[in-house]
Amino acid sequence: MKSLKAFAPATIANFNVGYDILGLSLNNIGDEIEFVPNGTDQNKITQILNGPGLPLEADKNCCSVVVRRMQEALNHFEGVDLKIIKGFNSGSGLGSSSASSAAAAFGYNELIGRPFSNRELVFFAAEGERVACGSAHTDNVAPSILGGIILSIGGSAEDLLELPVPENLYAISLFPKIKIKTADSRKILRDEVALNKVTKQVAYMGAFVQSLHTNDMNLFSRSLQDLIIEPSRSLLIPKFQEMRKAVMGSGGLAFGISGSGPSVFAIAEGEVSSKQVLKALENVYKSEEMSIQTYVNQLAAKSGARLIK
Amino acid sequence: MKSLKAFAPATIANFNVGYDILGLSLNNIGDEIEFVPNGTDQNKITQILNGPGLPLEADKNCCSVVVRRMQEALNHFEGVDLKIIKGFNSGSGLGSSSASSAAAAFGYNELIGRPFSNRELVFFAAEGERVACGSAHTDNVAPSILGGIILSIGGSAEDLLELPVPENLYAISLFPKIKIKTADSRKILRDEVALNKVTKQVAYMGAFVQSLHTNDMNLFSRSLQDLIIEPSRSLLIPKFQEMRKAVMGSGGLAFGISGSGPSVFAIAEGEVSSKQVLKALENVYKSEEMSIQTYVNQLAAKSGARLIK
Repeated sequence: MKSLKAFAPATIANFNVGYDILGLSLNNIGDEIEFVPNGTDQNKITQILNGPGLPLEADKNCCSVVVRRMQEALNHFEGVDLKIIKGFNSGSGLGSSSASSAAAAFGYNELIGRPFSNRELVFFAAEGERVACGSAHTDNVAPSILGGIILSIGGSAEDLLELPVPENLYAISLFPKIKIKTADSRKILRDEVALNKVTKQVAYMGAFVQSLHTNDMNLFSRSLQDLIIEPSRSLLIPKFQEMRKAVMGSGGLAFGISGSGPSVFAIAEGEVSSKQVLKALENVYKSEEMSIQTYVNQLAAKSGARLIK
Repeated sequence: MKSLKAFAPATIANFNVGYDILGLSLNNIGDEIEFVPNGTDQNKITQILNGPGLPLEADKNCCSVVVRRMQEALNHFEGVDLKIIKGFNSGSGLGSSSASSAAAAFGYNELIGRPFSNRELVFFAAEGERVACGSAHTDNVAPSILGGIILSIGGSAEDLLELPVPENLYAISLFPKIKIKTADSRKILRDEVALNKVTKQVAYMGAFVQSLHTNDMNLFSRSLQDLIIEPSRSLLIPKFQEMRKAVMGSGGLAFGISGSGPSVFAIAEGEVSSKQVLKALENVYKSEEMSIQTYVNQLAAKSGARLIK
């Protein structure tokens, strides 16, 4: 067994129309993990770069837990030393624990000769989410491993639906450096939804999938509405409505909360438009004493976890 | 202006995943209307065949109301005598008032030289629904006019989405001759839906649209689930669960309530399978003293309103 290095991208989950079920890959931002076989049956976190506060204990770190679950499933324990290089902030809402968990699952699978399919890896990576966030949700780890836009309709490999990715779409993400805990942003949600809102939200999901298959960007934009989660969660994000206006007023196709926030995202068509939207978004926080970080990523179908040098 | 005769098909609305927004055309069952210009500015219902209890008054009959709304929109009043030939039972849940309203809109538009597009006609036909059922919903009249499977996401022409229709699918409908009023079947619904059910229902709609575009009949079958409406409304339909078992146990792909019932429908792939499903469905009521009527229709995209001889 040779050492290797794997990368898995950041992701936008809870993508407008699909709370808990729809996510997309951000392709070029993400986490790296170096795997070095250590000749024992134990896994060890040797280093975490750019991840202050993340646990080094093997039974608490999401990466080593993912590797352990894979070893248990195979009943074969090839211990590894893991060096984790975080590529973006945890707590941003861009799927930080998922990118690490996905890279762990993908890299270890490569190291031991690919006993699992990429779809199977999603459910191992979800075990990392369970450690990091308390529930084994797949809406971040699925696009982080498989790339593109993934609709998760259930808990088996065939339930991960790869939706078409229109060409020339860009995701513009903005992370305002405030803290929102996933648990808090869950608490703010109502347990019940009015039937007339449900009907509309169901319609928008159908329209969204239709827009991807027909490459209808007008429909794409009209369908990307979140009537259920955003009205509550947006209250936790400073200047959310101003940002929405800025994005939609500068040619953006969609705007919403990434994951459980505080990051927000916009979708724009073409590089020129994506730069205008980025500028408009940054302008909203210009006069504020708030540290922000922005990213621009072209969407792509084949943009999941991969080996790197 | 010459006399003419128009036909518009029965429809299944509230199609599993899409309460109030998703409907499909049943192609070969439906209502006919004969239009005879009468040289006045008034419309008149001269006869209704097979429609006991339906109103003959021009301001109460859905057909003449639809024609009137079109005349008002054009501010041009070419009066017609209407003879309505009902092809299936009203109160069945198969879109009886919609088929009449759709035939009225389509036929009158043809008579006066097609000033309106078919999509515009949907909203005139919806005015017939307002008279007959109290609300101008489009989920029956849209597929009755346009044919195929229609997702209605809003109140304008561009909001009527024509979904792909897989080849070789059959709808098997069964109408048990009991009375359920639309108003009662609305009353039985809960006003609020638990968030975890909403999430799943939204996912199933996305998966359904994906299945149509990828012609994935396994996914089609898995996605056609109604977690929101069916649990309540199925209580009003005798032997509903037995019918579901019979359909799914005999190779059916889906089963559900048509409109607000009491009719139920099954979807099957291929003629042989559709006959097996029909037989299994009919068997459920065999020992009951219940009059039933069944229909089998192949689904087709171009199966909306049309002129006939």
